[in-house]
Amino acid sequence: MSGPDFTKLELIPVIAQDVEKGDVLMLAYMNQEAYQETMRTGHVCYYSRSRQKLWRKGEESGNVQLLKEIFFDCDADTLLVKVDQVGGAACHEGYRSCFFRKLDPKTGAVEVIGERVFDPAEVYKPAEVYKPAEVYKKG
Amino acid sequence: MSGPDFTKLELIPVIAQDVEKGDVLMLAYMNQEAYQETMRTGHVCYYSRSRQKLWRKGEESGNVQLLKEIFFDCDADTLLVKVDQVGGAACHEGYRSCFFRKLDPKTGAVEVIGERVFDPAEVYKPAEVYKPAEVYKKG
Repeated sequence: MSGPDFTKLELIPVIAQDVEKGDVLMLAYMNQEAYQETMRTGHVCYYSRSRQKLWRKGEESGNVQLLKEIFFDCDADTLLVKVDQVGGAACHEGYRSCFFRKLDPKTGAVEVIGERVFDPAEVYKPAEVYKPAEVYKKG
Repeated sequence: MSGPDFTKLELIPVIAQDVEKGDVLMLAYMNQEAYQETMRTGHVCYYSRSRQKLWRKGEESGNVQLLKEIFFDCDADTLLVKVDQVGGAACHEGYRSCFFRKLDPKTGAVEVIGERVFDPAEVYKPAEVYKPAEVYKKG
């Protein structure tokens, strides 16, 4: 196999894992175009299912993901990217990881783990303009 | 939010991560029934898209996954399970992780990383009968 097979699935799930700490940050999707852009630029680009267009992660918040390693699975229908998460938070709610809600299998109780790295209200200002040059300097 | 939302998606992707070493082992899917069985039994149960039925991981190979922690994401449409992978290999090809193929973003070259823990030809014998009592003793 030579890579992910977009003929099987138009959108392939992508697991993003912090390259240093190893925690799972998020799951999103790539189409072939997003995958090719990611490979070419070294900045992780997903495909947004809700907005139905390429989603250059961090475009708005500045929290880009720098691609460090990339793997595909035995069925060639899932990707794993190891990233350097600029800004320290992958989640749009301001948490380091999107998986900040833990379930207790016995009781079903939900516990919020992890701390907020940023306040979403501060980061996602309606009129903010994306300035890639400034963002990428951080990485 | 009180847990994964199966009204949004009938099948929710589930990332399995080794609870000790933190490496990502595989991605599979759960429907509500698989999720409930996982929560009730503490053994990870997926839904097989190809076979269209519940997939009690390790049922055939003995490589069950013991549920240690479970998280859901900010959109309530992805799960993360931290597991104790009995037998040390999650992949049906005998590798510890299904993500044993690494891509070079510059050249597209594929490198196999990680070693085979078992030989699939030895494990998946056609006539083998599933013996849960023997399997679960190992955990």
